[in-house]
Amino acid sequence: VDLVAALVASVGPEHVLTDADRRAPYEVDWTRRWSGPALAVVRPGTTDEVAAVVGACRDAGVAIVPQGGNTGLVGGSVPRPRGDQVVLSTARLSSVGAVDAEAGQVMVGAGATLEAAQAAARGAGFEVGVDLAARGSATVGGMVATNAGGIHVVRNGTMRARVAGLEAVLPDGSVVTRLAGLAKDTAGYDLTGLLVGSEGTLGVVTRVLLSLVPRPVDRITVALGLGSLADAVAVVGRLARRLPGLEAAEVCFADGYDLVSRALGVAAPLPGNPPVTVVVDVGAWSPAAAGVLVDEVAAVLADCPEVLDSAVGTDEPTRARLWEARERHAEAVATVGIPHKLDVAVPLRRLAAFEAAARARVAEVAPGSTTVVWGHVGDGNLHVNVVGPAPDDERVDAAVLALAAAHGGTIAAEHGIGVAKRDHLALTRSPAEIAAMATVKHALDPAGIMNPGVVLPAPPGLFFEL
Amino acid sequence: VDLVAALVASVGPEHVLTDADRRAPYEVDWTRRWSGPALAVVRPGTTDEVAAVVGACRDAGVAIVPQGGNTGLVGGSVPRPRGDQVVLSTARLSSVGAVDAEAGQVMVGAGATLEAAQAAARGAGFEVGVDLAARGSATVGGMVATNAGGIHVVRNGTMRARVAGLEAVLPDGSVVTRLAGLAKDTAGYDLTGLLVGSEGTLGVVTRVLLSLVPRPVDRITVALGLGSLADAVAVVGRLARRLPGLEAAEVCFADGYDLVSRALGVAAPLPGNPPVTVVVDVGAWSPAAAGVLVDEVAAVLADCPEVLDSAVGTDEPTRARLWEARERHAEAVATVGIPHKLDVAVPLRRLAAFEAAARARVAEVAPGSTTVVWGHVGDGNLHVNVVGPAPDDERVDAAVLALAAAHGGTIAAEHGIGVAKRDHLALTRSPAEIAAMATVKHALDPAGIMNPGVVLPAPPGLFFEL
Repeated sequence: VDLVAALVASVGPEHVLTDADRRAPYEVDWTRRWSGPALAVVRPGTTDEVAAVVGACRDAGVAIVPQGGNTGLVGGSVPRPRGDQVVLSTARLSSVGAVDAEAGQVMVGAGATLEAAQAAARGAGFEVGVDLAARGSATVGGMVATNAGGIHVVRNGTMRARVAGLEAVLPDGSVVTRLAGLAKDTAGYDLTGLLVGSEGTLGVVTRVLLSLVPRPVDRITVALGLGSLADAVAVVGRLARRLPGLEAAEVCFADGYDLVSRALGVAAPLPGNPPVTVVVDVGAWSPAAAGVLVDEVAAVLADCPEVLDSAVGTDEPTRARLWEARERHAEAVATVGIPHKLDVAVPLRRLAAFEAAARARVAEVAPGSTTVVWGHVGDGNLHVNVVGPAPDDERVDAAVLALAAAHGGTIAAEHGIGVAKRDHLALTRSPAEIAAMATVKHALDPAGIMNPGVVLPAPPGLFFEL
Repeated sequence: VDLVAALVASVGPEHVLTDADRRAPYEVDWTRRWSGPALAVVRPGTTDEVAAVVGACRDAGVAIVPQGGNTGLVGGSVPRPRGDQVVLSTARLSSVGAVDAEAGQVMVGAGATLEAAQAAARGAGFEVGVDLAARGSATVGGMVATNAGGIHVVRNGTMRARVAGLEAVLPDGSVVTRLAGLAKDTAGYDLTGLLVGSEGTLGVVTRVLLSLVPRPVDRITVALGLGSLADAVAVVGRLARRLPGLEAAEVCFADGYDLVSRALGVAAPLPGNPPVTVVVDVGAWSPAAAGVLVDEVAAVLADCPEVLDSAVGTDEPTRARLWEARERHAEAVATVGIPHKLDVAVPLRRLAAFEAAARARVAEVAPGSTTVVWGHVGDGNLHVNVVGPAPDDERVDAAVLALAAAHGGTIAAEHGIGVAKRDHLALTRSPAEIAAMATVKHALDPAGIMNPGVVLPAPPGLFFEL
């Protein structure tokens, strides 16, 4: 094939994988729900090589699926089944630069793992500020492309807030480089922000200048027992207003903790396992602040009559114990069956109503199923896990996503749209918004070569659609 | 004229100003450098009326200049001289909603002043988080359209970070509404972020959901005397890493303070007026934190041998005294003549080199002129004020902007591009970036009716250009 020859000319024969065995790991996603054969897997090693690959595919009229660590949950980083797409793996763009301590920034290649970036940051007294369980595989470029979230958004924002600059190859093969890392820059449109969260449909991110957060000198963990999710929302709001060091605020429910206990033998953090438990981390950035941290938290909690019980961890073993049962929820759910994982967010004032309605709706749509809910309460983001319906039975997914939208929320809080939720996008985005997004997409990618069918439908007839 | 009739039908006769006297305040900007007669000034009172106005102008092929408080410095909010544009004033979209304390958000109309939003926020224990001198006139919509900065960016980010959601009318008259205020939402492209900083060229912002910041319970101000700007950058970097409550870090120079002293009789904050002075504010959000604030700052300063002298203000009168000479720099410069005001930012590691080079370059290009520099040192943002060259003599502007770009910086840190810097945009943005911005602009506004000639050149022949 001409295209393969052009790809080989771009990156060298050893980095164009056409053999089925070598292609295989790039062709199926982490969930095993999404897969398809690739025409070829290309592994460029420089930005110029990425541009050459994009140019070759554009000339051949062949679509590109950018792929980072392939840890996505919505089918956005593997080829569609027809087998006519090229996977552009960023694995070799894995450089991690030296931390610029004065600016609090570090330059990394798109293919650097989160873990590698975290190690560099910590070595210089910083944190990346975004953390998630897939850190060993998830790449910074993929996290930028999907605007990754996680447990620290309540303090540090999503990945968007952590991007001080980036470089990307656009669908026309041109290279956009915004790596000055300026806190203020009003010279034109925010192309950086447009690329963040575009899921590889507007370009391939090649380098990222990360804005780091200073690493705290101390942290405490507090588990709070509450009678209801509404109380949890109120208490976390108060904590967020009065504790600028609040780094995480996670919510779990008694039934979830019971499952973790039964399945894995890990106890809930609070004796008696109250209906709702919130686990928070609060940091201090100086010894003086660390010295008053427990008092500071206690003073806020004194104004929170909703709190039924609490436990404070000031040392690492206690902190780990308070977190463990939260962290092992996903693992516990997997012991029951393959879950439908619904990642939604709604405005805080409607979070409790949504949660109650979602449980009721699941019981109607999929009677006898097991529902486990946990989430990032400061962000209004709940993960609704349902075990029972067959993996291909999407009725429960559709019902919960529609309910989130009906509560003024989003059907994709931190996992993206991909192909999995593309046909539900209109639940949460108006026709005017979808039209504007499609206008931007088609203007920047008129041939539709960049991850077509992800986020938005591909133009009819242009590419085979799942 | 048909268009005027359509505008009257859209908003009522009392809100379509065609009389020259009534139009006049909308036709000249704050700098008096930019002005032009409007075909009409329209003051819609609702989003639907804005959409109707946009539709009427689109049908008539007449361009729209959105205008908020008209406090911009780059000519982006007044009509071009030919007199064939309609000014769309957001003045009547001035509603300020109730603060949602749980979410830390407030909904305001685009035409609400910053001051009105600040009053609402403070009444509920919050701050808007962005502040600037024009607060009594500058509107939230205008600040969103220009991605306003100011002195609190070091902690709170620019206006972009403070926008939890917005509503806007696009050039095709459609209304995009993203007002759920979700911390996490990965359902499609970030249209909100694309509109922020687009200077009215992609749509008219009609409502904004502001993300507020909790109001500190106490603040201290510290003035630090330093031998050089390089030392100032190093010290502020250390403060930012170890003091999460650092709210502002401003830099002034001895010659600027001397001018303020001579012109206005206001003394420099430190005796002896060292070569460089940094003024910082540090906040505390709880009584416990407030109790250790001075110790916390002292501990960091103990590790800063660069600091030659310091003064701490813990009470309001002392804090005000430490700030006053900084705040009156612009007023002092105006006593000498009409300044060329150059708003640039460069990476922190090159800030000191840029500042020295800028002073040298100005002395070459405009010998005998007075140069006064101050800025937001945490953001790498300096305001280079030059008095001497005639207002229309742009040689010094071109020289300083080129120098900022040559140092890897931007020609527009917080004032935007407007028409003033449009023809310099290529100094700081690559051809690939400008092409991508133009592609987005022309896709969303194919007729070129939305603030044409601002940020990017208008398509030739479509509209008269200055």
